[in-house]
Amino acid sequence: MKRVHNFSAGPAVLPVEVLEQAAKEMVVYGNSGMSVMEMSHRSKVFEQIIKDAETDLRTLMNIPDNYKVLFVQGGGHTQFSMVPMNLMKNKVADYIITGEWAKKAHKEAGKYLKANKLASSEDRNFSYIPDLSNLKYDSQADYVYICENNTIYGTKFNQLPDTLGKDLVSDMSSCILSEPVDVSKYALIFAGAQKNIGPAGTTIVIIREDLLRDDLPQYVPTMLQYKIHADSNSLYNTPPTYGIYICGLVFKHLLANGGVEAMYQKNLAKANLLYNYLDNSKLFKGTVEKKDRSLMNVTFVTGDDSLNERFLKEAAANDLVNLKGHRSVGGMRASIYNALPYASVKALVDFMAEFERKVLNEG
Amino acid sequence: MKRVHNFSAGPAVLPVEVLEQAAKEMVVYGNSGMSVMEMSHRSKVFEQIIKDAETDLRTLMNIPDNYKVLFVQGGGHTQFSMVPMNLMKNKVADYIITGEWAKKAHKEAGKYLKANKLASSEDRNFSYIPDLSNLKYDSQADYVYICENNTIYGTKFNQLPDTLGKDLVSDMSSCILSEPVDVSKYALIFAGAQKNIGPAGTTIVIIREDLLRDDLPQYVPTMLQYKIHADSNSLYNTPPTYGIYICGLVFKHLLANGGVEAMYQKNLAKANLLYNYLDNSKLFKGTVEKKDRSLMNVTFVTGDDSLNERFLKEAAANDLVNLKGHRSVGGMRASIYNALPYASVKALVDFMAEFERKVLNEG
Repeated sequence: MKRVHNFSAGPAVLPVEVLEQAAKEMVVYGNSGMSVMEMSHRSKVFEQIIKDAETDLRTLMNIPDNYKVLFVQGGGHTQFSMVPMNLMKNKVADYIITGEWAKKAHKEAGKYLKANKLASSEDRNFSYIPDLSNLKYDSQADYVYICENNTIYGTKFNQLPDTLGKDLVSDMSSCILSEPVDVSKYALIFAGAQKNIGPAGTTIVIIREDLLRDDLPQYVPTMLQYKIHADSNSLYNTPPTYGIYICGLVFKHLLANGGVEAMYQKNLAKANLLYNYLDNSKLFKGTVEKKDRSLMNVTFVTGDDSLNERFLKEAAANDLVNLKGHRSVGGMRASIYNALPYASVKALVDFMAEFERKVLNEG
Repeated sequence: MKRVHNFSAGPAVLPVEVLEQAAKEMVVYGNSGMSVMEMSHRSKVFEQIIKDAETDLRTLMNIPDNYKVLFVQGGGHTQFSMVPMNLMKNKVADYIITGEWAKKAHKEAGKYLKANKLASSEDRNFSYIPDLSNLKYDSQADYVYICENNTIYGTKFNQLPDTLGKDLVSDMSSCILSEPVDVSKYALIFAGAQKNIGPAGTTIVIIREDLLRDDLPQYVPTMLQYKIHADSNSLYNTPPTYGIYICGLVFKHLLANGGVEAMYQKNLAKANLLYNYLDNSKLFKGTVEKKDRSLMNVTFVTGDDSLNERFLKEAAANDLVNLKGHRSVGGMRASIYNALPYASVKALVDFMAEFERKVLNEG
């Protein structure tokens, strides 16, 4: 039962301790006499599971009391609709375009409101975060939208835009829980679980309570109204119970291992190891501006497509898998989420160094 | 690791063999070196998992080639919006109201079109299926909607309405795969997985191809368009990968055990055992008209609330759990889905007979 070094961009690696516990509890959970999958979402046992998950996430992220935590379905793509449908008042919003997902969110919002492109880094294939010092917000904007970490391009907002009091909405799918954040700076945070938390099919929404409204346009489906889910503690309908259970196990695992600050230090060590190697390599180079580098997704190339291919093939043969970059960047991408061990990054860097020596000797 | 007799209405019992296999494969799936939860939805391994799941479901239900099979998120509640949003042309639809879920579907549809109540059994607390022989369809109706098995009330459409050529939409959440159906009689079938198939968070949609449209109103979220999911084989966004994997294991389990016809015979045997006992009991009685009885959800009462309470308490002490009826019916409900063993129904009937003897002796 050999496990590989899994650099998948998502769904992605989970803590092996969590998987082992899930395996052990699969057929019978605790004293319940059944699997978590077989439990009514209204049972006392499951209500404790979802309550614990929420409490633990609140502790991990230090979420203020005036924010609701929701567990919903539909992934980030569904949030692309829910955000404008639920937050629009003036029917104007400002979007900062830093990659594919921000583009899709912006396009979907355009169905419901005037979605401005406040700034964009598309001119250089999203290899940087736009200058945030001089943004021209629309005075009518209901919110400002960012995709905080750009999985495909390997960039991250390493500072937040000063929105001059406007509500900030952040897609944190690929960076949630990777480093401390001040939740009070955001109006709404959402994240698909499948990158840094748990299995695909569970989406986490953290929303300031004053944004919960029931005066939405008639066409907004009941299931896409934040207030419906908030009012019923995510039990309006049957939630993705097993996914929430796994998220909860991950939260407990993080708490037992020092919380988000400890995770951040570990993530810094992993990212520094890889970025330092890249910055000194004569073969590989990173694809994004240093100041905007992501802690979670490290994109790099050799500058030679056939060499990239050879690297990916030889890496896979050495159990270093899912390193192929997204087609819009090419080359390689190492996603080094919370659950990826330091040893996996070390194995990658060692392999890259060996590959580099070999190739440079051939040259 | 004792397992109980689990009569939960949903999420509900799964085949123990499937849970055991899932436990075994949790940390490493096959030769992949990772858990199914950790796999990219675009990986070859996962693409095989979802392809197998679709193929096996097609075999089990004998689904014609001109129907698409979709794996989506959001449960039946999201379908309540998707059906009218995607199927409306004349903006009229006929709903047959046979319980809570049909009522909710009808109400949600009213946001988008003129939703007629074609017939209703609300006058006698949904304890029967309305007469289908003389329905007055709206000539403009885009579709006719039924909730085929009513989980709360224990009724089922044991024949389908003759819709005179109009498209029939069926919520099969609590009866899918429990008995053979002729898919070609339906325009669209949907089912949340969490009752008769797999874990909550995966919804199955079977839709006739000519109903897939891209000329929907602008307000319809991209994620709520059937065509988007159909065109990308349910991989438009990250689907609930682990849930789909479990559904696939259940499908393989059904195929290995004789398919839907064998399951139907087993379900008949279970239901007959329980209904025959009820029909001869001097203490318990069924709550619905015999001709409309569900094979999956058996509702019954003693006629005395405190006796119901005592029964539930003593049953639970004997590992017969989740037998409490829905508050709108009261009394007891035994959900006896595909995965519930005959032995569990036998244990319930034996316990009921013993309880009856005891109570009648006390009286």
